Amino acid sequence: MSNLHPFVVEMHAMLRNLDRWLGKAAEHAKNKNFDPEVFVNARLAPDQYPLVKQVQSACDAAKFAAARLAGKDPPVHPDEEKTFEELRARIAKVGAYLETFTEKDLEGADARKVPIPYLPGGNKGALGIDYLVGLALPNFFFHVTTAYAILRHNGVDLGKRDYIGEAVKIIEV
Amino acid sequence: MSNLHPFVVEMHAMLRNLDRWLGKAAEHAKNKNFDPEVFVNARLAPDQYPLVKQVQSACDAAKFAAARLAGKDPPVHPDEEKTFEELRARIAKVGAYLETFTEKDLEGADARKVPIPYLPGGNKGALGIDYLVGLALPNFFFHVTTAYAILRHNGVDLGKRDYIGEAVKIIEV
Repeated sequence: MSNLHPFVVEMHAMLRNLDRWLGKAAEHAKNKNFDPEVFVNARLAPDQYPLVKQVQSACDAAKFAAARLAGKDPPVHPDEEKTFEELRARIAKVGAYLETFTEKDLEGADARKVPIPYLPGGNKGALGIDYLVGLALPNFFFHVTTAYAILRHNGVDLGKRDYIGEAVKIIEV
Repeated sequence: MSNLHPFVVEMHAMLRNLDRWLGKAAEHAKNKNFDPEVFVNARLAPDQYPLVKQVQSACDAAKFAAARLAGKDPPVHPDEEKTFEELRARIAKVGAYLETFTEKDLEGADARKVPIPYLPGGNKGALGIDYLVGLALPNFFFHVTTAYAILRHNGVDLGKRDYIGEAVKIIEV
């Protein structure tokens, strides 16, 4: 295990899926004649983040994972979105950022010492592979899947195919 | 990228988390004096799998991913669970199976040709890395996170720490 670039590519693909779900949700709200903001503020439990914060967190999870694994400084995106259009613009911005990462940027990232800024002490982190597998990926999928679940629960016509999204490259075996 | 063993270890860890969420849910049902079977059959949308099937699917996703990446034949586990105890026993069974995989089993799994039996034609699949990143991991996290979301939506006292679970190994950076 050395080059972690495929995981950056996959987070980008999942963010494109998320963007499509938001598009379907906006269309659903339009067809049913209700304010799309209802979706933006929907949540599965009163003490859980609403959709807007799930989308922002998914964007940040992908951005921070890629940046930390590559040893770069991520751009700052303040959490100011209030509409589907703004959320989709945030996704596009993070997608464009993820596209700047090359295989070379992620070469050897498994063994890189990755800082985790929110840990107390200021100089704590994890090995790249531990950070990716035990923290960054679960955190990313948590927010993406919870966003999906909020929309699914609220009647948006989504299914597993929308979740998985673009097909993997099929070969003869 | 060559040895994919850390991902098998992580799926095992997430299944242990899932087991703990089910334990909390069973306790919640007991405290509130309702039949735990209500949880087992709970779902977020009328046309979505209930909790029981999400747990079975998460177990299968982990089992098939590990087996296919290592070129082994996975054990068969019929979907017959009806109670929390039976679901937790299924998780334990799959956990024990995942523990049998060594680093050596997953060495070079990124480049292995992995069959995907449900694709039409019978001889189709994907490269190990494509299968893991684009199919197996999203599928696994989908079912685990949806199980979490069902319980969270139904009032079980769970939070992000329960989701992430065991801490990653922290180092000085």
